Amino acid sequence: METTDKSALQKGRDYAAKNLTPNLEEILGERYDDLVPGMSESLIEWAYGRHYCRDGLDPKTRQLCTVAALTVLGGQTAPQLKINIEHALKSGANKQEISETIWQMAVYGGLPAAINGLNAAKEVFASHEAQ
Amino acid sequence: METTDKSALQKGRDYAAKNLTPNLEEILGERYDDLVPGMSESLIEWAYGRHYCRDGLDPKTRQLCTVAALTVLGGQTAPQLKINIEHALKSGANKQEISETIWQMAVYGGLPAAINGLNAAKEVFASHEAQ
Amino acid sequence: METTDKSALQKGRDYAAKNLTPNLEEILGERYDDLVPGMSESLIEWAYGRHYCRDGLDPKTRQLCTVAALTVLGGQTAPQLKINIEHALKSGANKQEISETIWQMAVYGGLPAAINGLNAAKEVFASHEAQ
Amino acid sequence: METTDKSALQKGRDYAAKNLTPNLEEILGERYDDLVPGMSESLIEWAYGRHYCRDGLDPKTRQLCTVAALTVLGGQTAPQLKINIEHALKSGANKQEISETIWQMAVYGGLPAAINGLNAAKEVFASHEAQ
Amino acid sequence: METTDKSALQKGRDYAAKNLTPNLEEILGERYDDLVPGMSESLIEWAYGRHYCRDGLDPKTRQLCTVAALTVLGGQTAPQLKINIEHALKSGANKQEISETIWQMAVYGGLPAAINGLNAAKEVFASHEAQ
Amino acid sequence: METTDKSALQKGRDYAAKNLTPNLEEILGERYDDLVPGMSESLIEWAYGRHYCRDGLDPKTRQLCTVAALTVLGGQTAPQLKINIEHALKSGANKQEISETIWQMAVYGGLPAAINGLNAAKEVFASHEAQ
Repeated sequence: METTDKSALQKGRDYAAKNLTPNLEEILGERYDDLVPGMSESLIEWAYGRHYCRDGLDPKTRQLCTVAALTVLGGQTAPQLKINIEHALKSGANKQEISETIWQMAVYGGLPAAINGLNAAKEVFASHEAQ
Repeated sequence: METTDKSALQKGRDYAAKNLTPNLEEILGERYDDLVPGMSESLIEWAYGRHYCRDGLDPKTRQLCTVAALTVLGGQTAPQLKINIEHALKSGANKQEISETIWQMAVYGGLPAAINGLNAAKEVFASHEAQ
Repeated sequence: METTDKSALQKGRDYAAKNLTPNLEEILGERYDDLVPGMSESLIEWAYGRHYCRDGLDPKTRQLCTVAALTVLGGQTAPQLKINIEHALKSGANKQEISETIWQMAVYGGLPAAINGLNAAKEVFASHEAQ
Repeated sequence: METTDKSALQKGRDYAAKNLTPNLEEILGERYDDLVPGMSESLIEWAYGRHYCRDGLDPKTRQLCTVAALTVLGGQTAPQLKINIEHALKSGANKQEISETIWQMAVYGGLPAAINGLNAAKEVFASHEAQ
Repeated sequence: METTDKSALQKGRDYAAKNLTPNLEEILGERYDDLVPGMSESLIEWAYGRHYCRDGLDPKTRQLCTVAALTVLGGQTAPQLKINIEHALKSGANKQEISETIWQMAVYGGLPAAINGLNAAKEVFASHEAQ
Repeated sequence: METTDKSALQKGRDYAAKNLTPNLEEILGERYDDLVPGMSESLIEWAYGRHYCRDGLDPKTRQLCTVAALTVLGGQTAPQLKINIEHALKSGANKQEISETIWQMAVYGGLPAAINGLNAAKEVFASHEAQ
């Protein structure tokens, strides 16, 4: 019998492997676990096992909401915004949906946040076209 | 022949009347136009004529993205968050979708923002049940 | 011979007494010095002795810039925003200049911040008219 | 044999029971689990099982750091700030240490954030004295 | 007969051409209209047609208020802060007025925001001296 | 007889010389006093003379609280965060205590803020190891 906890981490791992980047936990672990033991496992459990894989909202809408939030949180979250624009593409959102989400944030977070968000999107889209 | 501009304000009025609150501009005007002449018209044009009625993203997803953004912007936007939870319901989102959107923001904006967002949602949902 | 420091606190006291509220340090002291010894003196020195009384920008423009900043910092600074709207009036700004400053912040801090700012201004202006 | 995950939730429950409020998960569950199933469990696991009970930093310093963070995040986190001032007292911090932590934040988050933080502390301390 | 809307966009274009950068809309359009059709027009209408060209506050004070707001919004708005320092110079503010505005923000947004703002100003001023 | 003020600046100078960087005021002065006359003196007085050297909280805990605050304030304060990680090391905090402080902020400021904070710590720690 599986405990609730166990499935939180396991569900997170399954979600990331299926929807995002198979080796996401490994990448995080190599970068951060030396400094903060268990950081990679904890992040996968919390973000993907405890949030993204929940019922009630599809992955694509979840990712667009994340893009919206990271846009209004400001340009300082640019690295995370870019990663989540990638994740939004992987979750089935197209470029227009992502751009529209970001631009709408001008209403709530102001023009600078929206413009910085569009700049991040342009970078991600350009790197895809260059491939 | 209509100019692009003209349709921005008109489209905003049409969008608000159809999807949100028919007399939104009037409510805003009574409250703010004395202090800031033209504020109500300008808000309708910008928020609804220049953003929500754009192609490429449906009103319901737009509203969920707005709920996400207002959640991470923090508890100080509680009045606007409540209004946009109402607008999300009017745009076809159900309570679960709204609650999931808010709770997911714990990952990006931290637990306090998500908890304040859930409190706002509880208030809106309770006022609906009381009707 | 006065030291530079000495004049920082003294200048702050003189500025507050002349331009704002004669007993500002006393009000702050009664409220906070028990918890944080010297808080009132330190605030007067820093805010008014080290900033507002500097050369190069007039008190009225300084206060409008403060109103702008507190508006975009969000509704959580509403108490300080109201105090600084009072200070802006005392520094010679009129209601229109204050309202225009706040509304313009919609461009940079988003609509919710600007609307919360206008609400704060309406409260301050109403309390003046009630006198 | 316990899995890592299982202990994350269990450690969080043990930490909260020992250091904070024995029925914290229950209180959260009654308030939020209807809206967001599993929210209380998830919060205990993440905040207390994955963070506070970690090695390398004592609970008291952790709580003072949290008070610092909630202070600069602004007055909108006042409810959470008050709860964490309570938790800081329970973790062995005295009123002076808490007040000093908050006031220092004036340097980094500005005076309004620090003053709102002191107001929150005054409320918590007053409720203790009233008991 | 001109509609109100029409003049909002037209006024914005006239304001930008006269006070800021004649080809601002074109620059924005080349950069963003492919991603977000109509973005450049919409920005000019909202920021300049609906805000800066309003009565009741002169362009120079408006720009100083914008510099204040972008300073407290944090270093992530550095690109926009630099552009608006340029616009403040074009609107008649001198270097001292701009520096004083930024430094005063240490009181409200904290020292890091003010220091990042001064760094942005130094870059803009240096690029002028290099010309 | 020394005035209270005088000792505020002098105490700040003594604190910085003893605990941080002997020539901190000089470094700041060379960089900023031309733009904002007296900035370096004012910063030393406020941050170190009016805050860090106060009774009631030890320098090490003060620095960890500062690291916590700068982490949740977001990646835009990265330069100041790095300086204060250096100051925390000089105040007796070890790498683990600093890393734990930053990672805990994921609970309050969200994952992006914590990850950006860890990145800043990694840079500082790496520069020490390279020496």
